[in-house]
Amino acid sequence: MTELKTGGAQGYLRIATEEAFSTPELIDAWRDELDQPDVDPGFQSLIGYYLNHPADRPRWIADRLQDLGEKRIADMDERGIDRQVLALTSPATNVLRDADRASVIAEIANDRLAEACRNYPDRFTGMAACAPQDAKRAAKEIERAVTKLGMRAVIINSNILGEYLDNPKFWEVLEAAEALDVPIYIHPNTAPANMIAPMLEAGLDGAIFGFGVETGMHGLRLITTGILDRFPKLQIILGHMGEALPFWMYRLDFMHQAGVRTGRYENMKPLKKEKVSRYLRENFYMTNSGVAWEKAIKFTQDVIGIDRVLYAMDYPYQCPAEEVTTLDAMDMPIGDKKKFFQSNAERVFKI
Amino acid sequence: MTELKTGGAQGYLRIATEEAFSTPELIDAWRDELDQPDVDPGFQSLIGYYLNHPADRPRWIADRLQDLGEKRIADMDERGIDRQVLALTSPATNVLRDADRASVIAEIANDRLAEACRNYPDRFTGMAACAPQDAKRAAKEIERAVTKLGMRAVIINSNILGEYLDNPKFWEVLEAAEALDVPIYIHPNTAPANMIAPMLEAGLDGAIFGFGVETGMHGLRLITTGILDRFPKLQIILGHMGEALPFWMYRLDFMHQAGVRTGRYENMKPLKKEKVSRYLRENFYMTNSGVAWEKAIKFTQDVIGIDRVLYAMDYPYQCPAEEVTTLDAMDMPIGDKKKFFQSNAERVFKI
Repeated sequence: MTELKTGGAQGYLRIATEEAFSTPELIDAWRDELDQPDVDPGFQSLIGYYLNHPADRPRWIADRLQDLGEKRIADMDERGIDRQVLALTSPATNVLRDADRASVIAEIANDRLAEACRNYPDRFTGMAACAPQDAKRAAKEIERAVTKLGMRAVIINSNILGEYLDNPKFWEVLEAAEALDVPIYIHPNTAPANMIAPMLEAGLDGAIFGFGVETGMHGLRLITTGILDRFPKLQIILGHMGEALPFWMYRLDFMHQAGVRTGRYENMKPLKKEKVSRYLRENFYMTNSGVAWEKAIKFTQDVIGIDRVLYAMDYPYQCPAEEVTTLDAMDMPIGDKKKFFQSNAERVFKI
Repeated sequence: MTELKTGGAQGYLRIATEEAFSTPELIDAWRDELDQPDVDPGFQSLIGYYLNHPADRPRWIADRLQDLGEKRIADMDERGIDRQVLALTSPATNVLRDADRASVIAEIANDRLAEACRNYPDRFTGMAACAPQDAKRAAKEIERAVTKLGMRAVIINSNILGEYLDNPKFWEVLEAAEALDVPIYIHPNTAPANMIAPMLEAGLDGAIFGFGVETGMHGLRLITTGILDRFPKLQIILGHMGEALPFWMYRLDFMHQAGVRTGRYENMKPLKKEKVSRYLRENFYMTNSGVAWEKAIKFTQDVIGIDRVLYAMDYPYQCPAEEVTTLDAMDMPIGDKKKFFQSNAERVFKI
């Protein structure tokens, strides 16, 4: 295998846009949450695994998540990653029932991430964490993080205690992101307790399947409930090849229009842009986190647009160097490949 | 628009492989179920709509579902459909808590369908209904339907009162299908009560999204729980472009292997064929029901194989003639198009 290097000799820099970190304060809060008698089953499955399972994979990941310095930079160098766009790892504070504690942890995480970005300005870009449980405070924190700390996006680790961003209680968060002109990256969370049972019993609740279900649904809800008509300039980023929404596009359009036409649902009204697919093409960016697969990347470029598909590695959860080599070797015009690896990210995150 | 005709002048017959019908006995039982105080929420949303909503679309569909004669043939003629492969419509008897009544209704449906196939041997092919709630009786009914009534597949409308075919209580059904060398078509059902809440509250429980989630999961469970190692000759058909499993293929392989390697789940053991994708390519057929979209069809042909992707219309739920014209016009070698529209179906259903 060719040695991977940073610096762009292949014709583009590699900017990885869904890269994760954690903080000691968050891990403490997760441990407290795991100790609760009524702990959420998806959270227990996911975070119980990453904090407590003795296998090499979760232990290595837990170690790397907490590093925003030399180990991470060495891993990036080894894999030829020029820059990471970093976000507080899922489910972050979204599972914490104490809104104050959740807010404080998000704020400290932003301070820690801002420090790392100052230490490595050529290697790190940050997304702002927040705790939508207290939406007013979250909106203020987004403003602070963007205007004072230099964050270039907002990370929302999908459902917040089982609720979604279309809920009016969270609209201040959406309003802040739109007003500050920063995209919201909706990263998967495990499905909430009222959705997860049949996936959990088969071991399909995590990244293998349940993540995509939960987060594809979240993205779709923002369209069908009219949220993107209310906040028309809002841009949403979905990982994992758009959580398969591009592949569903035809059916989404057909069945959405059938539902609207017959008035089947009170909360599914006609949309300004009419078709679900127009929102996917005009209000969404999608990254290939977890999907180092040329066929799916090209399909998505084809159906949502070459300017809307971005590279992501999903470090430290999924970061074999072979995946970088595979993507470098994609049969794709160099201009398109540069958009994918570099220039789309530079535009979206104002790098 | 060109007039559509049957007869194969375009170089292939059009065999539509996921076409639905209903029976008066089933509709009576559904009405009784809708009257129950603890009616399943997904069933109420779906069947309440099709039986009771006054809009044109559900009223037309309810009418056409009950016809296995001249109206259906006229609709087929008008759309250029040479043959329908017919199945008792979802959720069929899967929602009935009285296993005896469910079994009787499935058996009558098979008799009715067999009669229609005798009346129109050049136009109809049947799939056997059964009520897995009583698996022994279901296995016997599958045998009767295949050997005495000429059915060429088994229809299972996905979850059976919230349970899935990997549950050992249903293995006799799988055993019968494998022994008789007939495929099982897993058609979507609404997600069960322990999964549907966040989809239902946003109007996403039906064909627009929830169907794919529920049934993609069902197909995946048959792989990851080892069912297709236990019944290695079993062939599963999934509609709606494989319920997006082809698009998820890379991630399914990666995360399945990561899960197996670290022993995260008790019920996710190493598989004989190792990769999830091998099962998708060797134990699954996929139809394009609901997805008259060249891009998704070609993607699926590319990743699971040209011999494994079949045409379906999804009559009477989704049957615009324009979709047939669109698919006729696909930019695809005529040999591949014939496999898609005709010869794959002839082989799979022994037509």
